[in-house]
Amino acid sequence: MYVPEPISKLIEGFMRLPGIGPKTAQRLAYYVLTMEEEDVMDLAKALVRVQRDLCHCSICGNITDRDPCPICSDKNRDRSVICVVQDTKDLIAMERTREYNGLYHVLHGAISPIEGIGPDDLKISDLLKRLEDETVKELILATNPNIEGEATAMYLSRLTKPFGLKVTRIAHGLPVGGDLEYADEVTLTKALEGRREI
Amino acid sequence: MYVPEPISKLIEGFMRLPGIGPKTAQRLAYYVLTMEEEDVMDLAKALVRVQRDLCHCSICGNITDRDPCPICSDKNRDRSVICVVQDTKDLIAMERTREYNGLYHVLHGAISPIEGIGPDDLKISDLLKRLEDETVKELILATNPNIEGEATAMYLSRLTKPFGLKVTRIAHGLPVGGDLEYADEVTLTKALEGRREI
Repeated sequence: MYVPEPISKLIEGFMRLPGIGPKTAQRLAYYVLTMEEEDVMDLAKALVRVQRDLCHCSICGNITDRDPCPICSDKNRDRSVICVVQDTKDLIAMERTREYNGLYHVLHGAISPIEGIGPDDLKISDLLKRLEDETVKELILATNPNIEGEATAMYLSRLTKPFGLKVTRIAHGLPVGGDLEYADEVTLTKALEGRREI
Repeated sequence: MYVPEPISKLIEGFMRLPGIGPKTAQRLAYYVLTMEEEDVMDLAKALVRVQRDLCHCSICGNITDRDPCPICSDKNRDRSVICVVQDTKDLIAMERTREYNGLYHVLHGAISPIEGIGPDDLKISDLLKRLEDETVKELILATNPNIEGEATAMYLSRLTKPFGLKVTRIAHGLPVGGDLEYADEVTLTKALEGRREI
């Protein structure tokens, strides 16, 4: 079957993205043909720019277009709290709550012996250097609530003991809007353990 | 919430594609950050190229990177049959069967009074010009089996009467692997009407 080479190249390109199979890639590629030239150029340029113009913040490891990142350089942020997350996407999720006004530290992963990711592969030494500054009073461990995230949180809590900080872990429990009936045992156990007086 | 401008531009760009909402666009954009630079550049280049290097075949209206398209210029194709389809994607679907060896004509749409698409908006005059060539013996109307497609097929069958051709319409019926129980009444009626002796 003959498909013009520029289209097949584009289909291949789209297929490299996550969750996009051959059918979706084909649909997207043919849709691009019907798009305004300007919109397509914008998308192409945006692709090039995220590769060229972005870097990691030298302080917190967040992805940013200027260094230090706007969060680290924001004078209104509470510099006594650092929230440790695995990923930039987690940082964005935290920011979306609009409840947190402290700083962040992005680890770029979690400890995972299975995948061969040890503490040295994460940005932990940078974090320790930041803790030497005495303005930091609390470290919130907001790694994911799974095995790797828990292991990382545990590791960090032990490692940061000598600094005499308040080290906290975000709460486990039932998600808001969730259903007790469908909750798994581990979550329910954690929810029971973490119960609070009202 | 702060998202670096190159990333928000890319999210916007992805959201212009069909079936991609804000969440998927965000996921794709952050995935692009983790991709190899070469792969990202390939995708960006492919986007530019489909806009720049492709054109419509001057004979059949197929999307192609050379004119006339490989199907129209293929000497082994049966030039006595023309299959009329609405869209290039329909042509590809037909080609995928590997059963059809004739030529095509892409209408680039179907008659739709609701959307204000009349016969003049389709590549019908080009088709009539092709029918003047006496090598054409059969016209297969393979427009979609919906109201617009049927209307277009009906219109074309009347319009091409004077040429004295054999004009056929692809069969309606139950899809292979389908289930009688779940078939709608119209399809089942068409399947009954179109029954053949075995």
